[in-house]
Amino acid sequence: MKQVPLPSTKSLTPAQIIVSYYFIAIAISVALLYLPGVTEADAELSFIDTVFVAVSAVSVTGLSPVNIADTFTVFGYAIIMMILQLGGIGIMSIGTFVWLIAGKKIGLRERQLIMIDHNQPTLSGVVKLIREIVKILLLIQLVGAIILSLYFMQFFEDPKFAILNGIFSTISATTNGGFDINGDSLLSFRGDYFVQSVHMLLIVLGAIGFPVLIEVKEFLSNKDKTFRFSLFTKITTVTYGALLVIGAIGIYVLEYFNTFRFLSWHDALFGALFHSVSSRSGGLTTMNIELFDQGTNFFMSFLMFIGASPSSVGGGIRTTTFAIALLFLINFSRGKNEIQIFGREIHLIDVFRSYAVILLAALIVIFSAILLSVTDPTIPITALIFEITSAFGTCGMSLGVTDDLSNIGKVTIMFLMFIGRVGLISFLFTLGGKSNSTKFHYPKERVIIG
Amino acid sequence: MKQVPLPSTKSLTPAQIIVSYYFIAIAISVALLYLPGVTEADAELSFIDTVFVAVSAVSVTGLSPVNIADTFTVFGYAIIMMILQLGGIGIMSIGTFVWLIAGKKIGLRERQLIMIDHNQPTLSGVVKLIREIVKILLLIQLVGAIILSLYFMQFFEDPKFAILNGIFSTISATTNGGFDINGDSLLSFRGDYFVQSVHMLLIVLGAIGFPVLIEVKEFLSNKDKTFRFSLFTKITTVTYGALLVIGAIGIYVLEYFNTFRFLSWHDALFGALFHSVSSRSGGLTTMNIELFDQGTNFFMSFLMFIGASPSSVGGGIRTTTFAIALLFLINFSRGKNEIQIFGREIHLIDVFRSYAVILLAALIVIFSAILLSVTDPTIPITALIFEITSAFGTCGMSLGVTDDLSNIGKVTIMFLMFIGRVGLISFLFTLGGKSNSTKFHYPKERVIIG
Ligand SMILES: [K+]
Ligand SMILES: [K+]
Repeated sequence: MKQVPLPSTKSLTPAQIIVSYYFIAIAISVALLYLPGVTEADAELSFIDTVFVAVSAVSVTGLSPVNIADTFTVFGYAIIMMILQLGGIGIMSIGTFVWLIAGKKIGLRERQLIMIDHNQPTLSGVVKLIREIVKILLLIQLVGAIILSLYFMQFFEDPKFAILNGIFSTISATTNGGFDINGDSLLSFRGDYFVQSVHMLLIVLGAIGFPVLIEVKEFLSNKDKTFRFSLFTKITTVTYGALLVIGAIGIYVLEYFNTFRFLSWHDALFGALFHSVSSRSGGLTTMNIELFDQGTNFFMSFLMFIGASPSSVGGGIRTTTFAIALLFLINFSRGKNEIQIFGREIHLIDVFRSYAVILLAALIVIFSAILLSVTDPTIPITALIFEITSAFGTCGMSLGVTDDLSNIGKVTIMFLMFIGRVGLISFLFTLGGKSNSTKFHYPKERVIIG
Repeated sequence: MKQVPLPSTKSLTPAQIIVSYYFIAIAISVALLYLPGVTEADAELSFIDTVFVAVSAVSVTGLSPVNIADTFTVFGYAIIMMILQLGGIGIMSIGTFVWLIAGKKIGLRERQLIMIDHNQPTLSGVVKLIREIVKILLLIQLVGAIILSLYFMQFFEDPKFAILNGIFSTISATTNGGFDINGDSLLSFRGDYFVQSVHMLLIVLGAIGFPVLIEVKEFLSNKDKTFRFSLFTKITTVTYGALLVIGAIGIYVLEYFNTFRFLSWHDALFGALFHSVSSRSGGLTTMNIELFDQGTNFFMSFLMFIGASPSSVGGGIRTTTFAIALLFLINFSRGKNEIQIFGREIHLIDVFRSYAVILLAALIVIFSAILLSVTDPTIPITALIFEITSAFGTCGMSLGVTDDLSNIGKVTIMFLMFIGRVGLISFLFTLGGKSNSTKFHYPKERVIIG
């Protein structure tokens, strides 16, 4: 292939490309959901609920005002799977593409992140990389679908439905879509550790971040003796893993005297682990989380708010944002100005980015909660905060209030799923447009803080 | 007076001085509350509740597990007034003192903040300044006490009680103490705009920040033709005022169809304004806020979390912290690196400080909420968050759950009142000790954020 240089993006910023992609994807999804034969004959699906399902599927969130299993036909299931793939593969392709274009301006170190450090980023390189990503995802999905389909044969009389369910579950898990065609998420499998383990593995593979998968693949193929994992991969993997463990311990402790009271230790352990994994953007459940304690639900809201790795199928403020915030806080309280980790130093601009993302995310969540408390006064604010963080973290868990929401409530949740998926950094830059430096300086003056 | 230079603080950091001061003040207050004749003969006050009232009074918060009016004697009222003054005047004196010592290292620009820019900071200068501060506060209190005492004569048969109530109310309002000896805060005065206006004025004078009061006095005395208000005064006054207005509008709108439904427009207006002023650390109420909508309570939690000006009697993350965070966010989204406001540029270190304060405050509030949801499972989490932010903002409003709290719950709330009063910046530096620079640098590496 000829070495065509990357196209320039003078007209659109990378952030605008991402936002535009999602708008178009949502429009197409709405159209697809209006195809004849998508919904059951007796099912009623209003326009706003159709758009809601489309946004939820494109953003691979999984919140829905209607029961997917009851509302859609098999053809509908197929459409939803397609949209989930569009959302899942879409973000990684476009994310990688945008990263490469941005990498042109940033320099060598950053491009190592996606393993093309010794080459110029060319269009053929990008196409190759995206093909690589799609190949990895499809391979994971193929293995997952075969395992689950075969395993499901024992539960469903119709082998066709077992296969359909196996494929749907696999796509929903790997894209962290959170949808199900069982009608009750994974509650029927609450005692089945095999099904739960497969789902957790698939969810983690989707949420850990594509750069991580690519680097691990590179590491395993062992072509390059000088290979080292990027700082990004180290930070995001450690943070993602640590939060899974902390999440599981937290849920276990908080539910110990509540829903876990009468469970065996292994049922409780799996319950804690599964909902920890799932709240970081998977969105599936094996227990009725409405019965969880209000403290557990609030803790899960916190986990959903953090979400998954950047450049993954997950949402939220993202692992690296949270990690850098914590590292900053620890270093600052020790009077250090530089953040050092894994033998590297964090750029100042990334500290600023983490600040901007966390601050804006917190403000959006708080004001959404106040807004929805007005538009939906009958729903407890704890459930509203849960729903809001679930949307922002593109998680999809709900305390059963999605269908009760007013239209303004639904539009707010759609907006949150959208920005949760696009990522606040992209969203910020879309709002603000291009970077411009200040021409002149004022004298500096200190003020008293805190 | 001789120009004695300021003592050096090699042994204790400024932050440690502040923390030590509060520990000693709390110990003294507990001892005072154990004096004979402080509590009514039939009143029971456990050890933990005594400590709670002491911490609440020293931190001028106003939360109390017991009814102050019923539990304490007139002598007890006098002790509480003393502790409030100790807390109120204490913080401004020690705050000013520490600021001057810190100013020695920082340079001229900072010292202008407290109006001694053309002099070396000397011990006599500090003493003079603190005397100045105490004079301003006592003058305000004298005027307030006379007005309220005379006005109260019409309501209370016993003129002595009218005077006592006038003095207590004035001290409670100016120190933002939030305590009352009416037994029901200001609910009896919900139709009395005069009493409400006086209280609001006194609360604002205490919460606006002492540097502001001193600069305004300097400006009015008009000795120095080159006088200009410091950046600190401009930012904190604008932020404090803007939040008062936004708070009032917010409460008005949120309660419009609830408790304000059957009120005249002027009653509703005063209700909204008073609780906006009061939630920023005053802590008094003119209405039963337990009847407010959950959204209104959550909004008030947000206002309490922000709190008052630094170097004032109020707590929270403080106005300047919030202002710089917002300015940072706006500038960042526009791609600007420098924050410019009022013809000045904000120091990078102050942006970092605002980040550290907000992040730590948010984490403390979230984890306190999760902790209390375990220790006090019967209290709705909305009420717990309200209580937590009220303590952290040293506000003192409560949804009536203070006396229901478990002992762990009470200790947590005491801790929050303490750090809310000390200020997170001081708290951070007490934890972390002295500032130390990093000796060597690692190579920098970018990571993906958000
Ligand atoms: K999801
Ligand atoms: K107060």
